[in-house]
Amino acid sequence: MSDGSEIAAVIESVRERVTPDAAERELLDEVAAELEARAERAVADLPVDADVVRVGSTARGTWLAGDRDVDLFVRFPADLPREDLERYGLAVGHEVLPAGHEEYAEHPYVKGEYRGFDVDCVPCHDVESAAAIRSAVDRTPFHNAYLRERLDEATAGDVRVAKAFLKAHRAYGANLRTRGFAGYLVELLVLEHGGLVHLLEAAADWNPPVRFDPEDHGVREFDDPLVVVDPTDPERNVAAALSATNLARLQHYSRELLAAPRASLFEPREPDPLSAADVREAVADRATTPVAVRFDAPDVVDDQLYPQLDRSLSGLHDGLERRGFDPLRSERFAAETAVLFVECAVAERPRIRRHEGPPVGVRAHAEGFYEKYEDAPDVYGPFVEEGRYVVERRRQFRTPAAFCEADALFDVSLGPHVASALESGYEVYAGPEVAALAAEFGVELARYFDPVP
Amino acid sequence: MSDGSEIAAVIESVRERVTPDAAERELLDEVAAELEARAERAVADLPVDADVVRVGSTARGTWLAGDRDVDLFVRFPADLPREDLERYGLAVGHEVLPAGHEEYAEHPYVKGEYRGFDVDCVPCHDVESAAAIRSAVDRTPFHNAYLRERLDEATAGDVRVAKAFLKAHRAYGANLRTRGFAGYLVELLVLEHGGLVHLLEAAADWNPPVRFDPEDHGVREFDDPLVVVDPTDPERNVAAALSATNLARLQHYSRELLAAPRASLFEPREPDPLSAADVREAVADRATTPVAVRFDAPDVVDDQLYPQLDRSLSGLHDGLERRGFDPLRSERFAAETAVLFVECAVAERPRIRRHEGPPVGVRAHAEGFYEKYEDAPDVYGPFVEEGRYVVERRRQFRTPAAFCEADALFDVSLGPHVASALESGYEVYAGPEVAALAAEFGVELARYFDPVP
Repeated sequence: MSDGSEIAAVIESVRERVTPDAAERELLDEVAAELEARAERAVADLPVDADVVRVGSTARGTWLAGDRDVDLFVRFPADLPREDLERYGLAVGHEVLPAGHEEYAEHPYVKGEYRGFDVDCVPCHDVESAAAIRSAVDRTPFHNAYLRERLDEATAGDVRVAKAFLKAHRAYGANLRTRGFAGYLVELLVLEHGGLVHLLEAAADWNPPVRFDPEDHGVREFDDPLVVVDPTDPERNVAAALSATNLARLQHYSRELLAAPRASLFEPREPDPLSAADVREAVADRATTPVAVRFDAPDVVDDQLYPQLDRSLSGLHDGLERRGFDPLRSERFAAETAVLFVECAVAERPRIRRHEGPPVGVRAHAEGFYEKYEDAPDVYGPFVEEGRYVVERRRQFRTPAAFCEADALFDVSLGPHVASALESGYEVYAGPEVAALAAEFGVELARYFDPVP
Repeated sequence: MSDGSEIAAVIESVRERVTPDAAERELLDEVAAELEARAERAVADLPVDADVVRVGSTARGTWLAGDRDVDLFVRFPADLPREDLERYGLAVGHEVLPAGHEEYAEHPYVKGEYRGFDVDCVPCHDVESAAAIRSAVDRTPFHNAYLRERLDEATAGDVRVAKAFLKAHRAYGANLRTRGFAGYLVELLVLEHGGLVHLLEAAADWNPPVRFDPEDHGVREFDDPLVVVDPTDPERNVAAALSATNLARLQHYSRELLAAPRASLFEPREPDPLSAADVREAVADRATTPVAVRFDAPDVVDDQLYPQLDRSLSGLHDGLERRGFDPLRSERFAAETAVLFVECAVAERPRIRRHEGPPVGVRAHAEGFYEKYEDAPDVYGPFVEEGRYVVERRRQFRTPAAFCEADALFDVSLGPHVASALESGYEVYAGPEVAALAAEFGVELARYFDPVP
């Protein structure tokens, strides 16, 4: 462990790199003010009252230099019917962002580019408190207000460095692809610990589950490894979407940083993409049997796509496990195509499989089992082992690829969009054939075959 | 289920076949009387009192036609020191059987041939009751007396047929190779159920554990699937050595016989031995990876050899299982050589194996694990999965044969005589190479590859 000055110097150097300079701040202020004004003009034309609030990291001074996101929320009366809110919200959105397009979270909203900034224009309800929300987005203005009251310039700087740290280790972002730390969660953790170094020191020592409740108002238990009770809503865990793995990453890299402070730990690792030959070499070195199911990526937003890929991957993994192919590790990739990739330890199973029947002493069951298999073709047995009937039957799938190529693939738990994409056709690659994935997923495969925490 | 007459006819036909004819009985009586007289003369020369009792099935009229065993017990005073009992017992034995040799159960005794009969001459203590025995053989005269009082000619006939039935299905004999039904156990079960048909009907319905206590004097619980409390010793389960498999065999074949009575169920199945080519064909049909460890059979009696083979086989099975070769079934064979035979489902493992470390949150452990593998050569990772460190290390054994050929074989649980036999050298056969076993174990392999209950 170094003394405090060493880590302070590293943090200071990172802070300089990730803090927007004056020109960037000015540009942001200017663009944000224009957007707010456009939104307010559009609101004025509506038959209902509404106000416009800027939210998100650019509104709170905690964005990373180079990020160019502006989030505008249009707050409508709490009793406005949902259909009206959606209609008015989209109307405002399209006026603010004439070239924008509609996306859908809990409500539809408009997303578009404006002077080089990515802008979201989102309608919400102006509710009494975050506990009274009608949809998840209603909560955001409360988060914003809570943090604006508490974040000073030094803390905002620590938040930026913390975000850069998590980003470097692919643990930043509450989206369902990453399942990392939300910006709001980072802000709360830095505030709760009184600065970044204290947070890192604490995180290095956490033995999950760990719970924080900044306003000391939590009213329920959570199962999650990290619990941070939302200061604006006692019912909610801000870290609910965080994966155990990303929490562990924060802990691991906190220890690394405290043990030997260095700026490199704040820089993303960008591996060189593997070539097809590299992939073949990696597979040969491991002598495993990877199998990949590749199909056209379903045309849905990432927050829909990745949970479905995860569910499908886990279904495929379990299916291969149940058939005895002993998966070592699995991963999903998505770009133009989507891939469920499972690396199996077992390349081939015998022609037979053991099938244990009931204890001979359970007469009705036992007689039924014996009669079923007594004269069945292609069956060894029934014989008796430790008081039970056992038979050895023909096995359905002798290789991982045979399983993936069969209709059995559709019996595993798949996300609905993945299932329909697979129905339109898919390719199966096995063993060295997975090298074909390198053209599209060379970087992902580099990460897979040279894994770090 | 047939009516009673059909099964009665089958049993009657078997009874005729297995009941010794008058000539055989006469010869036995004559030989047994001679042996008793020889023993009594030898006893008269000793400085202590002793008497001679004939025990076993030939003494009780329950032996199978063709069996030629005579068991003579020489009963010495209960307070005779063990050394004297052994010395006097052997002296009598050698006088009765001048060409006999010494064997060792709980005491040494003399075994030899006399006029074509296999004769055991065993010393025991003349104790008050079977509960007061000084060694297991002291119990035998009590068993004998108990049964002689109760067995009439009809029951003795049923006992013979029951023994033939169990013998046909390789479930007869309490020796540690078979772990089947002891003769005494069969006699008690037939008595308890009032005849063979009632026993078969009851056995077909048993749902183990099953308990009988003919004298209603049992004083403890037993874990065994079948419990028959010894009428001469309330502390003892007569069926303690019976395996769950042999109990299940009685149940299975009882049902078969009751469903379709036929004499063939009383005839041993003697399969044709497999040739080497047959074995290769069977292995190819199953597409498994059998592995066999073959060594000179240790020169010890079967009751020592088979428990050690069983223990070693189970150690090898577990060792192969732990290394991921997924044993399907295993068997041991012994004649001139002894063989531990394990049929694996997995022929080859990858070059790597997964090794899960501690949760990252358990700091001291986690740091130790990470440091150990961080710069280790030939290791993938450490990486994080579900909050734990994981590495992929080089695997030690990639095939079942590699494991068997390595010193690791000596780390599995082996019987001591098996371990020292292996130390003198052994052969490993894998896959189709196991065909080489057919020359010595063709019948055993036929049973293995065409298993029946």
